[in-house]
Amino acid sequence: MYFCLVKRDILKHINSSKDLKNLSIPELEQLAHELRAFIINIVATKEGHLGASLGVVELTIAIHYIFNTPKDKLIWDVGHQAYGHKILTGRRDVFDTNRRLNGISGFPNIFESEYDAFGTGHSSTSISAALGMAMAAQIQGDKKQQHIAVIGDASIASGMAFEALNHAGVTNANLLVILNDNAIGIDPSIGALKDYLTQTKLDHKPERDNIFEALNFDYSGPIDGHDLPNLIHELERLKNVEGPKFLHIVTTKGKGLKKAEEDQITYHAPGKFNAQTGDRITSKDNITPPKYQDVFGHTIIELAEQNPKIVGITPAMPTGSSLKYMIAQMPDRAFDVGIAEQHAVTLAAGMAKQGLVPFCNIYSTFLQRAYDQVIHDVAIQKLPVIFCLDRAGLVGNDGATHHGVYDIAFLRCIPNIILYAPMNEVDLRNIMYTAQKGLNNPIAIRYPRGLSENVNWKQPFKDIEIGKGRVLKEGDKTAILSIGTIGNIVNFAIDQLPQKEKDNVGHYNMQFIKPLDQKLLHVVFSTYNTIITYEDGSIHGGFGSAILEFAAQHDYHLKIIIKGIPDDFIEHGKTQELKAIVNIDQDSIYDTILSTL
Amino acid sequence: MYFCLVKRDILKHINSSKDLKNLSIPELEQLAHELRAFIINIVATKEGHLGASLGVVELTIAIHYIFNTPKDKLIWDVGHQAYGHKILTGRRDVFDTNRRLNGISGFPNIFESEYDAFGTGHSSTSISAALGMAMAAQIQGDKKQQHIAVIGDASIASGMAFEALNHAGVTNANLLVILNDNAIGIDPSIGALKDYLTQTKLDHKPERDNIFEALNFDYSGPIDGHDLPNLIHELERLKNVEGPKFLHIVTTKGKGLKKAEEDQITYHAPGKFNAQTGDRITSKDNITPPKYQDVFGHTIIELAEQNPKIVGITPAMPTGSSLKYMIAQMPDRAFDVGIAEQHAVTLAAGMAKQGLVPFCNIYSTFLQRAYDQVIHDVAIQKLPVIFCLDRAGLVGNDGATHHGVYDIAFLRCIPNIILYAPMNEVDLRNIMYTAQKGLNNPIAIRYPRGLSENVNWKQPFKDIEIGKGRVLKEGDKTAILSIGTIGNIVNFAIDQLPQKEKDNVGHYNMQFIKPLDQKLLHVVFSTYNTIITYEDGSIHGGFGSAILEFAAQHDYHLKIIIKGIPDDFIEHGKTQELKAIVNIDQDSIYDTILSTL
Repeated sequence: MYFCLVKRDILKHINSSKDLKNLSIPELEQLAHELRAFIINIVATKEGHLGASLGVVELTIAIHYIFNTPKDKLIWDVGHQAYGHKILTGRRDVFDTNRRLNGISGFPNIFESEYDAFGTGHSSTSISAALGMAMAAQIQGDKKQQHIAVIGDASIASGMAFEALNHAGVTNANLLVILNDNAIGIDPSIGALKDYLTQTKLDHKPERDNIFEALNFDYSGPIDGHDLPNLIHELERLKNVEGPKFLHIVTTKGKGLKKAEEDQITYHAPGKFNAQTGDRITSKDNITPPKYQDVFGHTIIELAEQNPKIVGITPAMPTGSSLKYMIAQMPDRAFDVGIAEQHAVTLAAGMAKQGLVPFCNIYSTFLQRAYDQVIHDVAIQKLPVIFCLDRAGLVGNDGATHHGVYDIAFLRCIPNIILYAPMNEVDLRNIMYTAQKGLNNPIAIRYPRGLSENVNWKQPFKDIEIGKGRVLKEGDKTAILSIGTIGNIVNFAIDQLPQKEKDNVGHYNMQFIKPLDQKLLHVVFSTYNTIITYEDGSIHGGFGSAILEFAAQHDYHLKIIIKGIPDDFIEHGKTQELKAIVNIDQDSIYDTILSTL
Repeated sequence: MYFCLVKRDILKHINSSKDLKNLSIPELEQLAHELRAFIINIVATKEGHLGASLGVVELTIAIHYIFNTPKDKLIWDVGHQAYGHKILTGRRDVFDTNRRLNGISGFPNIFESEYDAFGTGHSSTSISAALGMAMAAQIQGDKKQQHIAVIGDASIASGMAFEALNHAGVTNANLLVILNDNAIGIDPSIGALKDYLTQTKLDHKPERDNIFEALNFDYSGPIDGHDLPNLIHELERLKNVEGPKFLHIVTTKGKGLKKAEEDQITYHAPGKFNAQTGDRITSKDNITPPKYQDVFGHTIIELAEQNPKIVGITPAMPTGSSLKYMIAQMPDRAFDVGIAEQHAVTLAAGMAKQGLVPFCNIYSTFLQRAYDQVIHDVAIQKLPVIFCLDRAGLVGNDGATHHGVYDIAFLRCIPNIILYAPMNEVDLRNIMYTAQKGLNNPIAIRYPRGLSENVNWKQPFKDIEIGKGRVLKEGDKTAILSIGTIGNIVNFAIDQLPQKEKDNVGHYNMQFIKPLDQKLLHVVFSTYNTIITYEDGSIHGGFGSAILEFAAQHDYHLKIIIKGIPDDFIEHGKTQELKAIVNIDQDSIYDTILSTL
């Protein structure tokens, strides 16, 4: 009806929140339509996170229309949903560089725009950060500045968000928490709170004694998050409410693209797809090797069929970890516990204490959320929890917040723990097999994101001897000590060497960062005059550092070169590009080896 | 009335929960009386945690009377309150060794007794662990086994506990959560949930829509936790309720000792006191040096009076960190956020983003709870949060769960962060002064528990140059590189050396673990033939490891000896005893130095 009254091509004139202020409601609705199309068109070819941003198109417009951003502070929890926000705030024309090397970040980033009030990437931080800003404004005497945290129903169930709500409720900070309730994170939301919210939506009259009111928030909702006029009306009202307030909106993830609405898990980040039909464009070449996550996902079922003690746990990553297969097949023994890494680890510890064999699958970067629990609940008690750390090393386009490059350093200092990195699918399967037979210690198995090495991985299981490294190639001048899959790249680099040089080079994939294979190391240190260590983790405190400690302890004085992730946060880009930047790609490794000969 | 009917000296016949089963209610009440007296008498002379255990005497007896421990699993959150439990379950006669070297632990410990179903020490783990056990029992087909988590109102407000409740509510696990609501942790509880619980107690009829019922728990209470017959009655009823259930009891911390009830903060762990009157026995020698925490607590006020941007944050340790002085004096700028380390760090990040200068005071061991937030919210964004890590290094009688020995290793691998350890009070003051003037990076300042070095610390502030080490003594054969207060012990050890040897020894207190003073290190590595590093942190990945990395990078091939905390969990005992065990006491240092000359 009103489309005839409004201009077309509104989006291309929007470069900041100011440009929204003079638009009429019909124009804002037209803008929502254009913004949604813009996101779909770019993500269809450039890839990225789709569903979350489609779900908050109206909310994004309403917030920037009502509030005085960037002076008012807007924080997007996790940040998958911030594409619309970025496009409206000056990044429309560079949005096709999203997640690419030297392009804009896939997450809000304070170094990218003043509209990104606080960087996100990991979940459930937004309320704490917004409260900090709101309290800062109070201290600084600014009574007008507004502080808005937009958080999903999966994220708000994480403990950190509860801590922030609990604190905010006893302040009179000027804080607005908007719960974007779509009943899904990357996978469907989990837990009693989700059930409660669902009931709230059905009742449509939570009024008093609501769980958020119990925490002293001024609660309103649930309202339809796609009803732009109503959203605007409600935000306008809330702008004038003092103290902590809570708006519950209901949205549909993937809104506006039928396929994305129907298959919300796949369309969280669907890869390339047809922008009109939504059909995914999958590679015709289907003989790619399996992903490491799938090797894990299928192997745990194979083992669990034989060993009734095995259970699987993931905090909100059933799809990303491929534990979903076991959850589907053995729902009584495999559990998604929601975004709750701390709980996941101690739950596993409790199960291990009772004699079960828990595989606890957590991305390396998210294990940072449960560090204390690994020390305090697992390692001190020597409980044989099997941690499978997916996404270890550089993860590519997700960038600095998601690289799993600290795990070696932060786990290596913990007594009692075994730390292993498979070089390929067979190793991963065999260490899983070995671990579930019953260790007396916890073990962390770290493996990378993405495709595996394409070896024939469905071989019969074999035991791996704990603490034993692997001799890949012997030499006499330079020894490479590698850990994990980077050993394959080292192999390729060595293969490229001229034969004469090649003969001088030895290569040892150490497999275990802890315990180190001291026997093998004594042989290596007695044979070569130069050692190069390779890892895809921090060079500070990592595997190379462990080798230096061994050398110092045993009074070896060889030249030792440590290669890995330098002391910087590595931004986003293809994993291969990032490896080249930090000199752990094949060419760099080749050059480094050659320089020592 | 009935005292005349019951035996005296019941306690001395109780060696397991079985021994309780045949007692009458009056006898159990007499036992409560004796147990309380026993705890008071021992703690009065042997020291330890008093108030928490006095508050749960009736609950402890009721649980062991009703449930079939140790087959039924009982987990005490934090564990300060488990003295009565230990005394009733076979440890009465060794209870006077509590917290002492080779004695029993001050916390539940699975290696000490099968009655300690799960070790605790850090807060808010009990529900996760108990749920893990309850789910394990289900998987193992055991429908009778009971699982009980006893958790205080301060601990249940921590995010991890919420994660566990949220998960438990969608299981039908046989789990009983008992909320021991005394409105205090170590300091008074904080937050909206506490206000809510207080209201619940006043109303005495929460019935429906209770926050725990919203999470699908079968809720009962609040009931008087000192009314033993009623407690027994209620536990008996709950034993037969299926699925997750929640009992809210109200107790008084310090119950039964008037002074402890009246001053619950002091009597959490009062030191020695008169068992009859409760009067504390304080040292007559009042010219002891100040504690490091007090140097922090007074200095932050001094700085905050000059710099209006300074704020102070502590997660539930206002007394332990001495931030309580600032909270009292500047309540609008100093905050106890409750047991919420994750939130505390990101709150500080939000404040720093808005231009405030937050000092975030967290014990080293509790920073493990906020590791991801340090990386993801602070360091990636280069926000200049000032972390003050109290209780770094060995903490003494609290033992393995509380030693702050991993911080150097887990922080050193994080880019952007400055890591500093003062050698004395003056250093601590001056680095606080330097940091609040405005750094471009976050900084972590680690200092130990307890008394300081007794230098004249109230000196005018001086700037500390970031990344600069300190030459304490020059020599030519062996150089000691120390970090933090262990430098003072090294000084004493060097002083004991024969003059001839003494002249050969250099000593450098490096002050900064990150960034290292490379210029000074080049001088040292060019001058000496042996280097010894000293730290009170993990030798894996710690300060010594940083020195090895420097040496490797610059191709130095000296003998380097790394001294610090070995790769083991160190138990409880006096700090001095523990230092001797790990060879970082004065005598060991003397011997080590001499062996290199």
